[in-house]
Amino acid sequence: MRTSIATVSLSGALTEKLTAAARAGFDGVEIFENDLLASPLTPEEVRARCADLGLSIDLYQPMRDIEAVPSEEFARNLRRAEHKLRLMERLGADTVLVCSSVSPLAEDDDALAAFQLRRLAELAEGFGIRVAYEALAWGRHVSTYDHAWRIVEAADHPALGTCLDSFHILARGSDPKGIEDIPGEKIFFLQLADAPLMAMDVLQWSRHYRCFPGQGGFDVAGLVGHVMRAGYEGPLSLEVFNDVFRQAEAGPTAVDALRSLLVLQESVGLTEPPAPVVPTGVAFAELVTPDVEPLSEILEALGFARTARHRSKPVDLWQQGEARLLLNTGPAARRDGTQLAAVGLESPDPAGAARRAEALLAPVLPRRRAPEDAPLDAVAAPDGTELFFCATDRPGLPSWTGDFEPVAHRSPVAGGVHRIDHLALTQPWHQFDEATLFHHSVLGLGAHESVDVADPYGLLRSRAVTNTDGSVRIALGVGAAPSADEGGRAQHIALATDDIVTAARRFRDAGGCLLSIPANYYDDLAARYEPADGELEAYRELGILYDRDADGAFRHCYTETIGRLFFELVQRDAGYRGYGAQNAPVRLAAQHVRRPVR
Amino acid sequence: MRTSIATVSLSGALTEKLTAAARAGFDGVEIFENDLLASPLTPEEVRARCADLGLSIDLYQPMRDIEAVPSEEFARNLRRAEHKLRLMERLGADTVLVCSSVSPLAEDDDALAAFQLRRLAELAEGFGIRVAYEALAWGRHVSTYDHAWRIVEAADHPALGTCLDSFHILARGSDPKGIEDIPGEKIFFLQLADAPLMAMDVLQWSRHYRCFPGQGGFDVAGLVGHVMRAGYEGPLSLEVFNDVFRQAEAGPTAVDALRSLLVLQESVGLTEPPAPVVPTGVAFAELVTPDVEPLSEILEALGFARTARHRSKPVDLWQQGEARLLLNTGPAARRDGTQLAAVGLESPDPAGAARRAEALLAPVLPRRRAPEDAPLDAVAAPDGTELFFCATDRPGLPSWTGDFEPVAHRSPVAGGVHRIDHLALTQPWHQFDEATLFHHSVLGLGAHESVDVADPYGLLRSRAVTNTDGSVRIALGVGAAPSADEGGRAQHIALATDDIVTAARRFRDAGGCLLSIPANYYDDLAARYEPADGELEAYRELGILYDRDADGAFRHCYTETIGRLFFELVQRDAGYRGYGAQNAPVRLAAQHVRRPVR
Repeated sequence: MRTSIATVSLSGALTEKLTAAARAGFDGVEIFENDLLASPLTPEEVRARCADLGLSIDLYQPMRDIEAVPSEEFARNLRRAEHKLRLMERLGADTVLVCSSVSPLAEDDDALAAFQLRRLAELAEGFGIRVAYEALAWGRHVSTYDHAWRIVEAADHPALGTCLDSFHILARGSDPKGIEDIPGEKIFFLQLADAPLMAMDVLQWSRHYRCFPGQGGFDVAGLVGHVMRAGYEGPLSLEVFNDVFRQAEAGPTAVDALRSLLVLQESVGLTEPPAPVVPTGVAFAELVTPDVEPLSEILEALGFARTARHRSKPVDLWQQGEARLLLNTGPAARRDGTQLAAVGLESPDPAGAARRAEALLAPVLPRRRAPEDAPLDAVAAPDGTELFFCATDRPGLPSWTGDFEPVAHRSPVAGGVHRIDHLALTQPWHQFDEATLFHHSVLGLGAHESVDVADPYGLLRSRAVTNTDGSVRIALGVGAAPSADEGGRAQHIALATDDIVTAARRFRDAGGCLLSIPANYYDDLAARYEPADGELEAYRELGILYDRDADGAFRHCYTETIGRLFFELVQRDAGYRGYGAQNAPVRLAAQHVRRPVR
Repeated sequence: MRTSIATVSLSGALTEKLTAAARAGFDGVEIFENDLLASPLTPEEVRARCADLGLSIDLYQPMRDIEAVPSEEFARNLRRAEHKLRLMERLGADTVLVCSSVSPLAEDDDALAAFQLRRLAELAEGFGIRVAYEALAWGRHVSTYDHAWRIVEAADHPALGTCLDSFHILARGSDPKGIEDIPGEKIFFLQLADAPLMAMDVLQWSRHYRCFPGQGGFDVAGLVGHVMRAGYEGPLSLEVFNDVFRQAEAGPTAVDALRSLLVLQESVGLTEPPAPVVPTGVAFAELVTPDVEPLSEILEALGFARTARHRSKPVDLWQQGEARLLLNTGPAARRDGTQLAAVGLESPDPAGAARRAEALLAPVLPRRRAPEDAPLDAVAAPDGTELFFCATDRPGLPSWTGDFEPVAHRSPVAGGVHRIDHLALTQPWHQFDEATLFHHSVLGLGAHESVDVADPYGLLRSRAVTNTDGSVRIALGVGAAPSADEGGRAQHIALATDDIVTAARRFRDAGGCLLSIPANYYDDLAARYEPADGELEAYRELGILYDRDADGAFRHCYTETIGRLFFELVQRDAGYRGYGAQNAPVRLAAQHVRRPVR
């Protein structure tokens, strides 16, 4: 299918929007009237610019409150329409959108609406333009797609059809099955938007909270299926009003937008991109740091041993059980301070995973960082984290471990960390929904519910993406609004242990700093649960937090923060599915206080 | 009445919140449980800190889902309650809040609820603690204040009363008149919050959008009137969950919060602060600039003449009709670049206006900036703009003009600018609601509806505050979310003329730069209106924008921006009440392009 995007979905001046849409790979655009009015380009120049960029102008929507009005008013509307049709001729746009009227002058008279829309279509036909009539969810008398279609059917003119908009249909809870009763050639246009499920005024919901298909709670794919079965052949066009996207850079938003349409077409069965290859584990996490000492000290105290060194680069492999961390002190490290820079995902088919990622517009990174390195498929996540698709020591596939030479090391201690439980990655404010859709569609991870977490200086949101057996868990986090220290918000690596009290005590006894948790927290634990003898005392001594759901318990504690990074030790009962979100406010407050327990 | 604020309404650690509340002048606080759990202070230390700060601890709310549950569950709840009552004893808090249950275990059984609440009250009484039972708007079986009261009445225990919360009552649309039927001594607590009127899920509305009384759309004062007539004698306590306040600095938020309670008490007739003295005009606007040349050139081109100079400071008075601008090139100017720094408001009673401002916690500025200056009462607005209460050349009152010595000047040109139409002041993101309440309550200006305006790089909000005859108009503007260039967003001064075409042409012919407006805008004007011959051509030539409402037309154009400041010329028909908001997206886009018409 051809793809299109309304310019209102992207930020910037009209020319910036057009460039972003073309670069992302869209076939066409809907031009939002205000974008044209505010542009110094003439309609002819806009037309030429679009042609240069390989974009068609699929829709223009300059008219409001056209139909079902008294005849003098309609005469004025036709005069205005003629102006706009002439403009569209200059612009080279062949379809005009007419939304159902919200005017207090509009009458509840379908015959009058049909008569006047037919008159408009006759006028438009003279300019070679088609009129697409759409029911706004808050239209005064016409607010459902089937009602709009009955009027179009009654008007019975070849230049008049209907426009369907997934938001207007799904926000009202209409059953989209009836779309199949509309002849495909009379569906002149299809606008797509998703939205989070919210009980709020539909106009405000539509104007501020729309998002791209797959980012919200609507079954947009189901609706598109009905439209396809009706025989629709026009473009899939995104029309998204979203306060966040208005502020975000147009380029990344356009890529995200097109990705949502690629995923949508796949789920409807219109296309078959390479299938998702769900990762089966975390092969490694790569940390960059300008100063290897503090991190080495923490890792040693956590029970990790430095087991190998990269053949040609200043990268060390630290290992404990299945938990592998790369410490990179190369040039990039010196620029950005200590942080989590890359994640190696254990993949059943690394090349296939990369093909899928590339098909879904993930930026592909060079396969070899140096000529002598093993080839590794990698892409960049929206937050810039590098994702490597790995096979670790598996026959027939190049292994990243081949680039490393073992070094003498003491045996790992017993009963420590055995794997990475999860990675917590802080997302740029504008890219939270994008990040979720990316991890879901590109990596095939399942997205969990978004939860709010109170930080002393603002609300945060967190959303986990995981594979089915929980061997890959990534917690995406973001501030509720941008803040000055956004760039500095720390990421963390949670390490799984079977005995957190022993692991935490050993860490502390080896000189590690644990985050101190206030005594008041433990008084509350005592009120909420009935801890075993000595349990609470140990938790209090070590700063261990406790949570429980219906299926199990979760115990966790935190190291100090180095640069933008800290570690968490977690002991997770098999059934527990969360991340201790209810303890997060206490943890965040403690991190602001920063009083480590030595 | 005593005033109190819930710690959840302020940002930061518990000690920061307590300090901010005390400094603003609150008498007490409600301690939100998470704030205590996250604090490194023991309950005794918190109690001592509050005592040092002169704050009582009026409420603690550690219990959820207490009542109307099966007996084993209730036994567990009582055990938890005993823990918390012991904690409250340490804290020195004598009232515990119990919200109506949202638990799936809760039964729809008022008798059981009353029985169990009575048991809880008996337990609490032993600790000298009172239990205040409140209906959550989304409570499972108890969601209205009268229902909660019926249960309290049935339980019939001296240590059990009810807590009223204006949000829960007004959000459900309950009639607050029935509050008068509750005996005053059984209303143990009153929590106040306002909220913008929104059709949305009440839980989300409550958790994210509450605001201080007078900032939203509820009749909080009306409700408080009923509570007073019932005989309530406890504190007025603010409990506000708001995503913005969570990010804002605690100090200014606390002052804003207390101001809202002062205004509320006045409107209920509980107190009589000095009456508002509504300004009757704009005496002057003061611009600071490190370089007087570019501004002087613009003012000359606009038809202003430099008519006087300050006796002792580098400040010039420029005048045209009743429009007076001060150009200040003193030391402050060199620090902050060109901007609007102060506004002189013509006041029928400058001293009275200052007394009101001070009573409502506006920061009072020194009356004389130099010993020889005329004394001038002044306060700082939330955005830092200095507001002077002035009498201009009025008998019996010191006039600011007395500090100026006339200089030789050419006569002002005829038919130019005759007054300041409005001032547009950009507010810091966190202070938009605060600014509106400040201008309304301190200055006695009326607040108009808030409107959204699309900038190419994000949504803006704008809200006007005016006096009755429109001789003082201030448009407060803010970004929908913080952005990197927030500090740099320009303010502007709109100058009224009776003939904008002549005024704009003269400005341009005198070398002034007008903001260029795209031709597409004028094509659209032609489609929407039927302009007189030549009218559109003149508008297009000069970049004049046009708007119309039911009562009149509005024509306006813009100068280039210097530093953080630009000017607007406006020709306003008497009946027109707006500010051309519908043209703002075109203007904002043009300012991003920055192509002046010479």
